[in-house]
Amino acid sequence: MPEPSVIRDTVASYLKTVATGSAADVAALYTEDAVLEDPVGSEPVRGRAAITEFYSALENLRQETELLAVRVAGNSAAFHFRVRTETPDGVVEIEPIDVMTFDEFGRITSMQAFWSAEDVQVR
Amino acid sequence: MPEPSVIRDTVASYLKTVATGSAADVAALYTEDAVLEDPVGSEPVRGRAAITEFYSALENLRQETELLAVRVAGNSAAFHFRVRTETPDGVVEIEPIDVMTFDEFGRITSMQAFWSAEDVQVR
Repeated sequence: MPEPSVIRDTVASYLKTVATGSAADVAALYTEDAVLEDPVGSEPVRGRAAITEFYSALENLRQETELLAVRVAGNSAAFHFRVRTETPDGVVEIEPIDVMTFDEFGRITSMQAFWSAEDVQVR
Repeated sequence: MPEPSVIRDTVASYLKTVATGSAADVAALYTEDAVLEDPVGSEPVRGRAAITEFYSALENLRQETELLAVRVAGNSAAFHFRVRTETPDGVVEIEPIDVMTFDEFGRITSMQAFWSAEDVQVR
């Protein structure tokens, strides 16, 4: 099981990379066979190739992220964060709660994002 | 799948009942075969009898709860909240992030609480 500090580091890297990195950079934080469900209830995205494709939709948009709260437990973390995305229609802001599990090296083995359309604000 | 409003109502009832109700009142919000993991990584508590016993440890302590954020997705919710417990050693404060799943009637089918010892503050 990874140390809590390793999990916290991966969460911080994830938020930084979502804001500033490429889709491949974000996907590299996941294990090869990781599963992503964003939002929870949607079809899961399985494997790093599909995960790279998932993040590529956001790759060319300017994004800012901010960690609001993180709780580490066992090999898992739940964290509340803000993501602001500049789109042609305005600045879209969401504050999801994500849950991740991690392998012994702190790589993400699963991600579930809790949010719904009613949480999306366009400014 | 329950409506988001039904899920939000159960989350609100849960926090209110943790603060003011009996262990049986809290357990009544769960299904008969629900599973609880608090904190994540500990041995799961299975079934309403065991869940009642779990909450009975807190039954005679004065508690206050406050919802900080809730996100509903599919049949699930993630929520960040504060719980203050008056103990002989002082006021213990934790702000966990919990994840719950719900049946079609809005009853809790599972709960996972994300927090660790380092998140506990004694005032």
